[in-house]
Amino acid sequence: MVGYKFMGKAHSHAYKDVGMFFDLAANVVMKAICGRDEQGVKEAAERYGWESYETDWRKMIAREDIDFIDINAPSDAHKEIALAAIAAGKNVFCEKPLALNLVDGREMLAAAEKAGIKHGICFNYRFLPAVQLAKQLIDEGQIGEIYHYRATYLQDWLVDPKTPLAWRLKKEVAGSGAHGDINAHSIDLARFLIGEFDRVVGHSRTFVKERPILTSSSGLSGIASETERGEVTVDDATGFLADFKNGAMGVFVASRFAAGRKNHNTFEIHGSKGSIRWDLEKLNELEVYFREDEPNVAGFRRIFATEPTHKYAGNWWPTGHIIGYEHAFVHIIYEFLQHLATDSPFTPTFRDGVKCQEVLEAVERSIEQGSWVNVDDM
Amino acid sequence: MVGYKFMGKAHSHAYKDVGMFFDLAANVVMKAICGRDEQGVKEAAERYGWESYETDWRKMIAREDIDFIDINAPSDAHKEIALAAIAAGKNVFCEKPLALNLVDGREMLAAAEKAGIKHGICFNYRFLPAVQLAKQLIDEGQIGEIYHYRATYLQDWLVDPKTPLAWRLKKEVAGSGAHGDINAHSIDLARFLIGEFDRVVGHSRTFVKERPILTSSSGLSGIASETERGEVTVDDATGFLADFKNGAMGVFVASRFAAGRKNHNTFEIHGSKGSIRWDLEKLNELEVYFREDEPNVAGFRRIFATEPTHKYAGNWWPTGHIIGYEHAFVHIIYEFLQHLATDSPFTPTFRDGVKCQEVLEAVERSIEQGSWVNVDDM
Amino acid sequence: MVGYKFMGKAHSHAYKDVGMFFDLAANVVMKAICGRDEQGVKEAAERYGWESYETDWRKMIAREDIDFIDINAPSDAHKEIALAAIAAGKNVFCEKPLALNLVDGREMLAAAEKAGIKHGICFNYRFLPAVQLAKQLIDEGQIGEIYHYRATYLQDWLVDPKTPLAWRLKKEVAGSGAHGDINAHSIDLARFLIGEFDRVVGHSRTFVKERPILTSSSGLSGIASETERGEVTVDDATGFLADFKNGAMGVFVASRFAAGRKNHNTFEIHGSKGSIRWDLEKLNELEVYFREDEPNVAGFRRIFATEPTHKYAGNWWPTGHIIGYEHAFVHIIYEFLQHLATDSPFTPTFRDGVKCQEVLEAVERSIEQGSWVNVDDM
Amino acid sequence: MVGYKFMGKAHSHAYKDVGMFFDLAANVVMKAICGRDEQGVKEAAERYGWESYETDWRKMIAREDIDFIDINAPSDAHKEIALAAIAAGKNVFCEKPLALNLVDGREMLAAAEKAGIKHGICFNYRFLPAVQLAKQLIDEGQIGEIYHYRATYLQDWLVDPKTPLAWRLKKEVAGSGAHGDINAHSIDLARFLIGEFDRVVGHSRTFVKERPILTSSSGLSGIASETERGEVTVDDATGFLADFKNGAMGVFVASRFAAGRKNHNTFEIHGSKGSIRWDLEKLNELEVYFREDEPNVAGFRRIFATEPTHKYAGNWWPTGHIIGYEHAFVHIIYEFLQHLATDSPFTPTFRDGVKCQEVLEAVERSIEQGSWVNVDDM
Repeated sequence: MVGYKFMGKAHSHAYKDVGMFFDLAANVVMKAICGRDEQGVKEAAERYGWESYETDWRKMIAREDIDFIDINAPSDAHKEIALAAIAAGKNVFCEKPLALNLVDGREMLAAAEKAGIKHGICFNYRFLPAVQLAKQLIDEGQIGEIYHYRATYLQDWLVDPKTPLAWRLKKEVAGSGAHGDINAHSIDLARFLIGEFDRVVGHSRTFVKERPILTSSSGLSGIASETERGEVTVDDATGFLADFKNGAMGVFVASRFAAGRKNHNTFEIHGSKGSIRWDLEKLNELEVYFREDEPNVAGFRRIFATEPTHKYAGNWWPTGHIIGYEHAFVHIIYEFLQHLATDSPFTPTFRDGVKCQEVLEAVERSIEQGSWVNVDDM
Repeated sequence: MVGYKFMGKAHSHAYKDVGMFFDLAANVVMKAICGRDEQGVKEAAERYGWESYETDWRKMIAREDIDFIDINAPSDAHKEIALAAIAAGKNVFCEKPLALNLVDGREMLAAAEKAGIKHGICFNYRFLPAVQLAKQLIDEGQIGEIYHYRATYLQDWLVDPKTPLAWRLKKEVAGSGAHGDINAHSIDLARFLIGEFDRVVGHSRTFVKERPILTSSSGLSGIASETERGEVTVDDATGFLADFKNGAMGVFVASRFAAGRKNHNTFEIHGSKGSIRWDLEKLNELEVYFREDEPNVAGFRRIFATEPTHKYAGNWWPTGHIIGYEHAFVHIIYEFLQHLATDSPFTPTFRDGVKCQEVLEAVERSIEQGSWVNVDDM
Repeated sequence: MVGYKFMGKAHSHAYKDVGMFFDLAANVVMKAICGRDEQGVKEAAERYGWESYETDWRKMIAREDIDFIDINAPSDAHKEIALAAIAAGKNVFCEKPLALNLVDGREMLAAAEKAGIKHGICFNYRFLPAVQLAKQLIDEGQIGEIYHYRATYLQDWLVDPKTPLAWRLKKEVAGSGAHGDINAHSIDLARFLIGEFDRVVGHSRTFVKERPILTSSSGLSGIASETERGEVTVDDATGFLADFKNGAMGVFVASRFAAGRKNHNTFEIHGSKGSIRWDLEKLNELEVYFREDEPNVAGFRRIFATEPTHKYAGNWWPTGHIIGYEHAFVHIIYEFLQHLATDSPFTPTFRDGVKCQEVLEAVERSIEQGSWVNVDDM
Repeated sequence: MVGYKFMGKAHSHAYKDVGMFFDLAANVVMKAICGRDEQGVKEAAERYGWESYETDWRKMIAREDIDFIDINAPSDAHKEIALAAIAAGKNVFCEKPLALNLVDGREMLAAAEKAGIKHGICFNYRFLPAVQLAKQLIDEGQIGEIYHYRATYLQDWLVDPKTPLAWRLKKEVAGSGAHGDINAHSIDLARFLIGEFDRVVGHSRTFVKERPILTSSSGLSGIASETERGEVTVDDATGFLADFKNGAMGVFVASRFAAGRKNHNTFEIHGSKGSIRWDLEKLNELEVYFREDEPNVAGFRRIFATEPTHKYAGNWWPTGHIIGYEHAFVHIIYEFLQHLATDSPFTPTFRDGVKCQEVLEAVERSIEQGSWVNVDDM
């Protein structure tokens, strides 16, 4: 595994716990974790239970005792590491975004397909029981023809102008801001749930254009310089309209400037037979409305996706005992490990990373042009 | 009508508006309103649309142009006025509580039955569309055998120790405090929805034992004296357990000391086939759970009781347009007026006032005795 | 008053009740109601308490005992009636939309201003206590600089393809569909709360293109023909992005195809100091987040706008006793009557109707053009 | 560790993960797990990461490489195992209930205190960030003098009469039913948050008196016999009133017959300065009302207890990323391990287990007697 901070912790936890709750077709051995700062990565290896650590990812890729590589380093490093891993014939599981831009992403996909390795991208929210239930209801036709899809992904960690300039706020490292980081999740969920995008038109803002330089970092925040300031080169917020290929209308808003919304990743879907609403802040619940319910007693049902019938839920605790954020990583890694061991089908792959990137860049182009952009033209 | 303050306003509004939204079998003419303070009652008559006013209720009862009397004066006056009205052969609609105590209430009921007049008591919450829906579901057996009934009626207007000593805080005028004022509503709703009480055991508190004397009054509050203080002689909060005759277990809590709960009149019912939850602060909504829903998609439904299928709702506005507190008075008065005009069945009557009073006093006796009291022993 | 159906009922109720709850500077006399169907308007006059009725609005306008005209006839009749009333020197209060299009609306505004009459438009939702509280907080700077405005107005009465072709679905009578009917409300609330629109880009759909002809009508629905079908010539749903002149980003979605959303008129606003959320289905509540609250105890506050400090709330019932949909009409008519009697300031006027129409038509033009449209270019 | 089923899984997970998220003063080595069924315990040892397994707890206690024993076997085994472990000088961490009855619990406490070992009881819900926040607010005086405490712990896994007769439904193994299993949690939280009980009065029910015999078991459910039925010897639901020593009034309801309530462990507290509400189904949230908030903007705040300021939350994920049910076990075990390693203060101990048992048995006695029972008389 390359990377050992926020995502490194989430992924490590998943590898450590997955075998405790799921029946794996093969054992996982946590061979090595890799990072540039030896002290940091050494501590991470001990704390998270990795057998060894490396400070040069090239060395790690070269190791013969390693079958697959999990990449969760900052976004600008994804491409180089992935291409090297693919060249070495390793299977690759990569954090989103796949790459800084569509060209790079396509190169990675082509390399992976040519090499015939197995690849995955960590759109983890697909793997929550409530989201799986939404998918099931739509696929079974219980929501009918889809008319509307609305998504928000709202956070507020940048409202404070004193929040420093982390790597996520630099275009050259992160690719984009709220758009690439959190709209990416919303785009993937929309594709997963209702299908492909046809065209988009958007707008974006960088509300606070300069921030204190970050002097040290950990997770999402860090210690800010009191004197030096740097330019924010990514968007604080991006919204866009979408037309889907199935005729549905879509609206997406991502923002890190939504005071009080901590991790407000929501979707609401209206179809000819019903509606669905979900919110990551209440990730165990799904609200569903069925038009076929008798009008006298019809209403949005608040479904706790903790029943044994709900995918993955039965692997954890009895009904009503909720799971948390990190469980989605356990589920996606379970599915990817099974895919490695048994050739069971697995999505999302690099292809989904590319499709997501197409939408992201179509929105960016629409912002430059001031008009709708067809996603297939990207 | 006798009384012209908080309840006088709510009742007047109902008489004024009922014909606009409901088809009445007979016209209502708002003949006269009565109160002791001539200036106050005169203004009320003009504002609320009464043809005339009286300052002596005996005179009003004596008027030949008046068929029925609505009593919403303070509780200690109910009995005398009602008995006089009954003696004069008038029909009577009385605010709750029927009387200060069970003996008086039984005397009123006996007089009314002997005189053969029509009588009603203003347990208005029965007449909200969502409560009617709850009743319908229970009566149809959709909730099954009832196991649990929990009710709270919580307000917070007394938490501030500077809130003055209104008439509602004096035992000789109000009979009791939170118990008689708001547990009475909860008791009536429980009887309406699931049936009669078997036995009860309770406890109560007067958290603030002295308050500033009230120098003038309007509605629920008034202007407090800065120097003089008087004793609070009623309960601030009363809770009790109940066994119902059908075997259900009940819990009731009424308090005027629940910070942040403004008018939190709730019930939650669990039966062998489902559950129901309601809250007066969201009076248009009913939450219902059906066990027969497929487990994968079962959940509490939030039903908006604003469909044409919901009783009374169709008389107001299209689906989704909510009604407010005072509409319950319009509905109960509509039903009582129809009862007067057409002999359509009507409950709640004085008999329901007496049954409610039996439970109230059984709780009080249980508090004195420190043990369960059978309601039928009252 | 011209019109006697859904809006006629709501306005009549307001004239009837306003004096009961508010101190008016002048008496209201409900002189005459006007409609084309004599039987219908006669019944409405009796039921709603109008002294007389007319079947020709020209006659009503000519009456000398009438000072002002309330227009709530179908939208295509607004202009002709209003111009005639203005010509007769009457004050005019008009339902939204002001006119079928911007040209007509501007003509009406010019005529009204030239004649010096008093005019108002019924954007009633401005006058709910919770919305007034939102306005107050924003005006006081408690939310800070505004970053985001999101609005939805969702209904579901058209999801059923058997719902017939009411006048609201014909472009020549209604002007537009969900856009003009309900986005209009959202646009007005946005202007009221955070200011003017700069530019917009949108998309729209007519999901069900043919519907059964309506054979008779009442309120929002009616009886459908089993054989004849007609074309739906308005939008079922319209969404758009907006840039505001103050720099805020906006998203608006109006739909009559949102299963389970009955009258889901919401806005959510994020600023540099806090956030606000409101929903018409819970119209007495406002959710507010203040960034200055200590992080340990910061959270969205669910405020019941039923305190005496909340505008209009004290005129009704004690704290916690909720009001309903129609109360907004009482409030706006109270303010307009006071404006007539005392020259107190009043908005929204025809000018606000025109400004709203500018945005509506800018969205329509953006849909034709596939690109952003500046509202000032309209 | 003795026990390897539902609680065994939860405890094992905690030992495995605690070092990944918390800085421990000493290493944890998962030496051995013990259970009667060799096949089952062997699999559990492998799956959960225990170095070895035993089928005889006496052997495990005798092992010199083991410092402390975690007991989560069925309740009737707690006493014997604990006494043996204490006799061997091992520290003991025990699942609740401490014992089947008060006499046994007191014996265990006396033995532990006499031996000078360290002991803890697994009242895990104390250790959730939102509950810790509630405790902090109360201790700081921000809620003021406490007037009301209401708790429910509602589940619905027994509503179905076909649910079989698990060990939790047999008095000789479980001690009691809903009362000892889930009211125990509510009693402990009340003691933790507002202090000691003075007196209680209760009622209880066994709604379904016979159930199918269980033929095999796993977790909370199992496979039911189609022919044989056995008697349910514990309560399905128990409710009680409580007076607290600080003068507060309490109400408690525990039920396994509350359709739709899956794990609805709630408390609501009203004090002179504010109110608090919590619900295990939304365990990351705390609702708090402060009376000192300006009335115009006062309302229950929905606080996400995922900020770095919230106890334990910062050890997991960034703000807004929720944790789940099992995290409470990680926290309590972290605290107990620190207690073992550094002598940091730790509650709850066996003493809290005994105090809880006193209340449980006082309620049972009150049910037999039909009157209030003083807890200190137990």
